[in-house]
Amino acid sequence: MPTPCIVIDGLVTRRNLDRMAAYVKSHNLKLRPHTKTHKSIRIARMQADRGAVGLTVAKVGEALLMSQAHDDILMAYPPVHPMRCAVLTKLAASKTIRVGIDSREAADSLAEAAQSAGSTIGILVDLDVGHHRTGVQSPTAALELAQYAAKVKGLRLDGMMFFPGHLSHGSSDAAMHGIDAIIKETLALWKRSGLAAPIVSGGSTPTADESHHLTSLTEIRPGTYVFNDMNSVYANCATFADCAATILATVVSTAVPGQIVLDAGSKTLTSDRCGPKPESGHGFIREYPSAKIAKLSEEHAQVDVTACDRVPRVGDRVNVIPNHICPCVNLQDSVWWQEPGEDPVELPVDARGKVF
Amino acid sequence: MPTPCIVIDGLVTRRNLDRMAAYVKSHNLKLRPHTKTHKSIRIARMQADRGAVGLTVAKVGEALLMSQAHDDILMAYPPVHPMRCAVLTKLAASKTIRVGIDSREAADSLAEAAQSAGSTIGILVDLDVGHHRTGVQSPTAALELAQYAAKVKGLRLDGMMFFPGHLSHGSSDAAMHGIDAIIKETLALWKRSGLAAPIVSGGSTPTADESHHLTSLTEIRPGTYVFNDMNSVYANCATFADCAATILATVVSTAVPGQIVLDAGSKTLTSDRCGPKPESGHGFIREYPSAKIAKLSEEHAQVDVTACDRVPRVGDRVNVIPNHICPCVNLQDSVWWQEPGEDPVELPVDARGKVF
Repeated sequence: MPTPCIVIDGLVTRRNLDRMAAYVKSHNLKLRPHTKTHKSIRIARMQADRGAVGLTVAKVGEALLMSQAHDDILMAYPPVHPMRCAVLTKLAASKTIRVGIDSREAADSLAEAAQSAGSTIGILVDLDVGHHRTGVQSPTAALELAQYAAKVKGLRLDGMMFFPGHLSHGSSDAAMHGIDAIIKETLALWKRSGLAAPIVSGGSTPTADESHHLTSLTEIRPGTYVFNDMNSVYANCATFADCAATILATVVSTAVPGQIVLDAGSKTLTSDRCGPKPESGHGFIREYPSAKIAKLSEEHAQVDVTACDRVPRVGDRVNVIPNHICPCVNLQDSVWWQEPGEDPVELPVDARGKVF
Repeated sequence: MPTPCIVIDGLVTRRNLDRMAAYVKSHNLKLRPHTKTHKSIRIARMQADRGAVGLTVAKVGEALLMSQAHDDILMAYPPVHPMRCAVLTKLAASKTIRVGIDSREAADSLAEAAQSAGSTIGILVDLDVGHHRTGVQSPTAALELAQYAAKVKGLRLDGMMFFPGHLSHGSSDAAMHGIDAIIKETLALWKRSGLAAPIVSGGSTPTADESHHLTSLTEIRPGTYVFNDMNSVYANCATFADCAATILATVVSTAVPGQIVLDAGSKTLTSDRCGPKPESGHGFIREYPSAKIAKLSEEHAQVDVTACDRVPRVGDRVNVIPNHICPCVNLQDSVWWQEPGEDPVELPVDARGKVF
C-alpha cells in the first residue's frame, strides 16, 4: 500500500455498525446515519442492511450518490442555491428526499424547483437547540416556518430536526432536559395548529447513546460512529479498540534530533484539532503512544519523540488515529478495507469532494 | 458557478508570475516554483514560459504530472518508499529528476531503484538552516551525506537545498546572515573535499524577494506567490490586490442572530489558521471586511457579522480570501479561471490529492 493511506478495519467497522443498530432498536428509535464520515456507497449499504431507515447527507452531490444505497435521503443542510434545489427535486421524482431548512428563502427556492420538476420534497424544520450554527431560534419561529412550508405546493411538512453539536457525551441532565423541553414545546405548538411531526430527528455520535433521554425523538443521525477517531476517544464515546480507521504513514526523516517526520501532513490528517483535547497534537500514533504529532505542514508531520523509549527509523511505517476522520476520508480517492488474514482491498471514496 | 468554488483572477495571477520572474532576473537568480499551490499543468506552463528553470513538487504523483509542463523536476521531499523511488527513477529516463534528501536510507533506496531503472537521479542535500523540519543538522553532516551520494552509482550530486520556513518577511539581517554563514561553511567544506554544488536552492514565498541577501543562492522555490492568501497578506509579502484566488460562497443561513452561515466549511477553506495572525478567523470576506469567519465545521462557516454595518441575505454570494490557498486548491476537482469581461473557464486541478 502506498503511504499515506487510510486503512479500514472491517471487523471493527461491523462491530460499530452493529452496536449502533442494536442501540436504536432497543430504544425504539430509528437510525438515519450521516454518510459524511465514510462517503462510501458500500458502507452505506451495510448501514441499510442493518435497518437504517434512511441516509443523511450534507450536499446534493452526496445525495445523488447515496441514493444508490437507499431510497430515503435527508439532506440535513439548507439547499438555497437554485442548482442545488433542481438536483434534489429531480431526484425526488424517484426517491424520498427530505431537507432541513431554517428560512423562507430555502423553502421558496425548493418549492419553485419542486413545482417545476413535478415532485415533492419533505421538509424538516431545523431547530436551534443550543449549538447556534443553523436553526430557527424559538418554538414560535419553528411554527411559523412549519406553517409556511405546509401550505406551499411542492413541499410536504415531515417534522423537525436539530443538531446537538454543543453537547458532549455525559452532558448534564439539565442540558438534556432543556432540549427535551424545547422540542416538546414546539411539538405542542404545532399540534395546536393542526401540524404533525412524524419525524423528530436529532443526535450525533458523541451523544448518540444518550438519545433515549430525549423522549420525543424518533430518529438519530450519527456519522462518525462507523469509524470513530480521537475526537470520539477523548469525548469518551469510543475506546481505542473502537477506532476502525487509521492513517498508514511512512517515516521519511529523522534528521532533526528528538523528532521524526511522517509523510502524512495536513493534506492527509487535516489541520483539525481534537475538540475535547485541543493540545493533544494532530492524531495518535498507535505504535508510539508517547509520541506527539506536534506540527503539520502539507506533506510533513513533525512528531516529537522525546518522550518515547524507542523511536522508528526512516522507512518504518506507523498507524495514526486522526483527530477527525471525516475530512481525512474526504482527502483520499480510496481507502483500504482490511479483513483479518486477507489482503487489503481498495474501496473508492465515492462522495469525495462533493462540496456542492 | 456552483458554490463553494475557487475563482482565479487571470490578470492578478499573471502579474504575480511576472513580478517573481522579474525579481529573479534582476538578481541573477533562477526560479524553480513549487507547484503545490496551483497543482495545474497549465499554470506550470505559464511559469515555464516566464523562464522557470524547473518545477518543484513534494510527491511523485505531482512529479509525474508536472513533467508534462517541464523537463526538469525537483522533488523537495525525501522519497524513501521503494515504490516512490521506482516512479522517480523511471521518470528520470526521459526527464531531469532531482531529489532533496537528508538520510543515507533515502540515498540507498533511490540508488537501488536508479540502478534497476538504468537512470540517474540528481541529489540535493537537504540542509536544516533553522526551520527544524527536515535537513541534516550541520555543514559536516551535509558533507558526509554529499560524499556518500557522490560515490553511489545511480546518483549525481547536484548541490544542496534548504527551506527557510522559520523566517518571516523582513526577518532581521542577523537571521539572514546566519543562514548565509551556514551555506558558505558547507560550500567551503564541499570544495575542500572536491565536491561542487552547482545548485543551492532555497526560498519560499514570505522571504522570496529578500533572497538576494543570501549571496550563495542560485535559485528559489516559492509556491504561494502565484495566488497569495491571507498568510501572504498578514506576512506583508502581498497586498489584498495581489490575492488572485478567492472562494466563492453562498449564504445558506442567517437564523442565528449576529451570524451568517456560508456553504464553505473546512472541506473548502481547511482548518488552517493564519500563521502570522492566528486569531483573525478562517479567511477574509472581501465584501464584508468587518465580518469574522469565527468557526468552521465541514460544510458550514459561521461568520460573526456583529461588527458589520450591513449583512448579506440568504442566497447572497461572497468572495473569501482563504488563510492558506494551497490546501484549498487540493480540495477541489477544478477551479474557475476568470479573465476580465469573459465567462469563467473551468480548469482542472491536475495534481489534486497526489499524496503519494
